[in-house]
Amino acid sequence: MFDLQSYLTEKRAVIDSALDRYLPPEERYPQELFRAVRYGVLQGGKRLRPTLTLAACEAVGGDAEVAMPTACAVEFIHAFSLIHDDLPALDNDDLRRGQPTTHKVFGEPIAILAGDVLLAYAFQTIAQFTRDASPSIVLEVSRRVAAATGAEGMVVGQVVDMISEGRQVDGKTMEFMHANKTGALLKVAVVSGGLLGGGTPEQVSALETYGEKIGLAFQIADDILDIVGDETKIGKPVGSDLEQRKSTYPGLYGLTRSRELARQASDGAVAALQPFDDRAEPLRSIARFIVERDS
Amino acid sequence: MFDLQSYLTEKRAVIDSALDRYLPPEERYPQELFRAVRYGVLQGGKRLRPTLTLAACEAVGGDAEVAMPTACAVEFIHAFSLIHDDLPALDNDDLRRGQPTTHKVFGEPIAILAGDVLLAYAFQTIAQFTRDASPSIVLEVSRRVAAATGAEGMVVGQVVDMISEGRQVDGKTMEFMHANKTGALLKVAVVSGGLLGGGTPEQVSALETYGEKIGLAFQIADDILDIVGDETKIGKPVGSDLEQRKSTYPGLYGLTRSRELARQASDGAVAALQPFDDRAEPLRSIARFIVERDS
Repeated sequence: MFDLQSYLTEKRAVIDSALDRYLPPEERYPQELFRAVRYGVLQGGKRLRPTLTLAACEAVGGDAEVAMPTACAVEFIHAFSLIHDDLPALDNDDLRRGQPTTHKVFGEPIAILAGDVLLAYAFQTIAQFTRDASPSIVLEVSRRVAAATGAEGMVVGQVVDMISEGRQVDGKTMEFMHANKTGALLKVAVVSGGLLGGGTPEQVSALETYGEKIGLAFQIADDILDIVGDETKIGKPVGSDLEQRKSTYPGLYGLTRSRELARQASDGAVAALQPFDDRAEPLRSIARFIVERDS
Repeated sequence: MFDLQSYLTEKRAVIDSALDRYLPPEERYPQELFRAVRYGVLQGGKRLRPTLTLAACEAVGGDAEVAMPTACAVEFIHAFSLIHDDLPALDNDDLRRGQPTTHKVFGEPIAILAGDVLLAYAFQTIAQFTRDASPSIVLEVSRRVAAATGAEGMVVGQVVDMISEGRQVDGKTMEFMHANKTGALLKVAVVSGGLLGGGTPEQVSALETYGEKIGLAFQIADDILDIVGDETKIGKPVGSDLEQRKSTYPGLYGLTRSRELARQASDGAVAALQPFDDRAEPLRSIARFIVERDS
């Protein structure tokens, strides 16, 4: 019987160690910058995205070490996005996972620049530390990660979220927003692992579907948690999204229907992995876990 | 006799056309974002960095088209850095090349995010649009551009500049600051062209030296222009760096000695190209031009 909690704990430990190893040391000059860079990454987090990259790599029979630099790169991008999202000009958040945000600790100028460094460093990490993969695959991974971060992904979703604030949006806009804001990076985390693990085009395509579905499940579950969650568990004030009247799944469809939609997305993710053998068990478990978690 | 002005005009036209072609169209949703992205890039500029990439590619006998996506990527990174540098939390500039800065036109949140998109898009552009080069070379270029942008380059220099503001720094610190803040991207622009053009390791190494020297010459000349320049020509208030008491070459060494240092750097850049044939004439001319320009 596969034990997801042990798996997540184990992966998180190797990922945390790799993040620490790849990041420039905090003694590097100028220390103000590199301390902020490391703070933004090493303050904790579930490491869901890099875990997905390693799990997808293993699901297609690859060696997780090949995907480790990309797994960390995706986490650097996630950390960069949190640092910039928290800035006064954007969400203006003082706390993140119960800790002061990067700009509260290091000031706004350093926070902006530390985010910039992390974004660039993600692409340096992919190109510099990946071993035993063909350069054309690594380049394709770099291209997809870049697209999912910027012009065809996360930042696009962030802007749609921003311009939608304070007004009710329709389901289609909300889906587009989430598919970009959180979905694109989750999806590319999965697909990159499949590519680096040597997956066939069919396997990579199945992983794309899996990635899309868990992205959706994750977002709906997040929206639900934001309403029914418990402040200490998620480390930020509950209901903050509702206060700012952001459009959410529960806001648009109600809690019951939202739970159904999350479950459907999770089931769809598991179904996409039907052709895979036991090595995809971690991915299947993660898809189920995403809609069951309470933090 | 080689005519640099015609060369620069011609390259600038093909670069402007390529920038326009590679960038997402401004009609793309959300338009607020893509209009800002394009504004940040297409508001003008001498296109010095991408011109260096193309010229270095041709200097080693390569086809400039192979280097065009990377040339544009370097310009995207330059544009991203200007957008973020101009932000209220950093230099707080309202004008850039005589035009309102991106955050003045589109607001601070969009300016931050448009900069982020451009940075990610640089790496997408290198990976997606480069043709007829080996993936391992393209990956090496991507790695070097990422390093020169962030953890081993531009942003590091920006932070050193920031923390040095208001106090006199020594020559060594100032050199480190400039080598990173402006030098690293200029150097990688040159070296990338050499790599993509199929240059030998010796040629690439000579181009590295050339890139370092013109970076230094460019910075000293910029510092001199900032003092003796003419407001309308450079499009920002003259002496603004001195007012903010940033350390400059003229501030540290005086105008006469600074002019000598700029000339030495320029001569060193030309000397590094000694093994190259006539195809390096544009690079030689650019090195001389950098210390002679008046804007």
